[in-house]
Amino acid sequence: MNAKKVSMKDIAKEAGVSTALVSYVINGNEKEKRVGKEIAIKIREIAKKLNYEPNQVAKSLRSGKTYTIGLVIADISNPFFANIARVVEDEARRKGYTVIIGSCDEKADKAWDLIKVLMNRQVDGFIIVASEHSEKQIRHLREKKIPFVLLDRHFPGLNTDFVATDNFKASYDGCEHLIEMGYDKIGLIAYKLDMHHMHERIKGYQSALEENKIEAKKEWLAEVEFENLENEVKRAIDGFLKMENRPEALMFATYGLAINGLRYINELKLKVPDDFAIVSFGQAEIFELYYCPITYLLQPLEDLGVKAVDVLLNKINDKETPLTQVLMKAKLIQQESSKMKVK
Amino acid sequence: MNAKKVSMKDIAKEAGVSTALVSYVINGNEKEKRVGKEIAIKIREIAKKLNYEPNQVAKSLRSGKTYTIGLVIADISNPFFANIARVVEDEARRKGYTVIIGSCDEKADKAWDLIKVLMNRQVDGFIIVASEHSEKQIRHLREKKIPFVLLDRHFPGLNTDFVATDNFKASYDGCEHLIEMGYDKIGLIAYKLDMHHMHERIKGYQSALEENKIEAKKEWLAEVEFENLENEVKRAIDGFLKMENRPEALMFATYGLAINGLRYINELKLKVPDDFAIVSFGQAEIFELYYCPITYLLQPLEDLGVKAVDVLLNKINDKETPLTQVLMKAKLIQQESSKMKVK
Repeated sequence: MNAKKVSMKDIAKEAGVSTALVSYVINGNEKEKRVGKEIAIKIREIAKKLNYEPNQVAKSLRSGKTYTIGLVIADISNPFFANIARVVEDEARRKGYTVIIGSCDEKADKAWDLIKVLMNRQVDGFIIVASEHSEKQIRHLREKKIPFVLLDRHFPGLNTDFVATDNFKASYDGCEHLIEMGYDKIGLIAYKLDMHHMHERIKGYQSALEENKIEAKKEWLAEVEFENLENEVKRAIDGFLKMENRPEALMFATYGLAINGLRYINELKLKVPDDFAIVSFGQAEIFELYYCPITYLLQPLEDLGVKAVDVLLNKINDKETPLTQVLMKAKLIQQESSKMKVK
Repeated sequence: MNAKKVSMKDIAKEAGVSTALVSYVINGNEKEKRVGKEIAIKIREIAKKLNYEPNQVAKSLRSGKTYTIGLVIADISNPFFANIARVVEDEARRKGYTVIIGSCDEKADKAWDLIKVLMNRQVDGFIIVASEHSEKQIRHLREKKIPFVLLDRHFPGLNTDFVATDNFKASYDGCEHLIEMGYDKIGLIAYKLDMHHMHERIKGYQSALEENKIEAKKEWLAEVEFENLENEVKRAIDGFLKMENRPEALMFATYGLAINGLRYINELKLKVPDDFAIVSFGQAEIFELYYCPITYLLQPLEDLGVKAVDVLLNKINDKETPLTQVLMKAKLIQQESSKMKVK
């Protein structure tokens, strides 16, 4: 931001050493070149005093790296992803990388546009929260040997690095908790989505029912479309309410589903947990601040983000690093919305 | 994503025309070059059939443009900014631009790192939600004639393009509404922040009190630090509660302040609006879903985002475009939290 940019030459002049020596120190090669410790410190201090800014382009050309990570996420307006973006950014910055983010609105073609734009701009690698139908893109990146790691969602058919939550286990735990609290008619509202993480949430719920000798009735599972979400959730809840022997507990497979569900439950003047006990995926302030705090599956957002950066940087620094595939545990946070059923 | 990239030559061969003709059509110059309508349609269809992908780099080199916008926002984990990012993206995409986002955690030095990274990657311009102490950066961009527009926050001392909310008026309206509802002891919790938008929110509140012949007591204004937010908000509320003649209504200058305030009010088992009537800035599902829905100032997020893209693209296409400075009105959404005081 100086009127005139400070160069290595300026630093060399001030320090009374050669420009080459300054370059060794600034680029972190002083050990290899056996530069004395004191002179290295002196050069760094002068660089700081003069507000020297290393020329990122020149640095990139030398190292073949840009020290930039592309983060492609499915939907920036979803607080889970917005918060994980924040974690990825903090961690990457700690490691000397800048993150540039793109959001694809859960659309594979938009994701592909973003990946192309970011590849053109030469990011060193990608962290990707994948959207439906994006397997082809992922395969393409793999073929081109572009370093990437999938975050939060992965494709079991594709052998890639990934860092995600164990969704089957989380959903199983949530459903089993409701059973333990005395509920045996449990509905699940999920997305109609051909994605592994969503399938796992459905399967975990069904397995918990079956292993507890409860038939997982087909009509207890409502799969709704992402488009027109509000009405789809209303219709699902209306459907439950019309059933004989209706579900008395509900699971929501995502935060967005829960918000819409709770809004409609309020509108109908139904009470949680008396009319519907609730367990939800996702996380949001609303789960704490709702009149009846909501039991939810806390995904290890911080650990997921940090680990994804870690895996990606290993990959960037050594493309032959073996695959890392991590499934992390979600934690069930028990609150009022799933308290013991009054018989 | 094809094994072999389709070129204009391939399209020309298939269509039985010259490569030059294909180029005119693909680059949208057919009118100027008087290409027949039918042949243009045929070329486009073949391009589509063959999955032709224009080479973005080549296109950029020709036009000197990258069709990419850098969006630098203060904090991606704040839902207001995450949602405005979504609007900017949708609008930019409609106009043929891709948005890459960086978040700076309300730190000017991080913002500057991001702007440099994005400049190196040659975005055509910036939409910036500025953070404190970033005037120097903004001035630098202006001097370098890099197209940019400030969004949501601006610096009155700097004559730049901006699109923001009229924060003075919004805050005035919120406070006056509380007065009309019978409250005359009104506290404001704001950030201790040297930013125009925050000053305006404070001034609007003070003016509404004074113009209604209520002394704006110094101790009714709590300015809290962004760091250690939770405890700072608690301390502010504790302070109010200890006063003789304590405030019976509270305004929160941002969503983050409101969330922390409401959490503490719940913890203290105080009731809204009986113990504290409330009006807040920002927007969040919680304002609807709280047991006592919260009155808030709805900022025109959609209009702000769309207008910012519009102003920036005009600037990109003609650097000599005169300045556009827009202040939009927030709308007071009246709910239960500010209902008429029971005398």
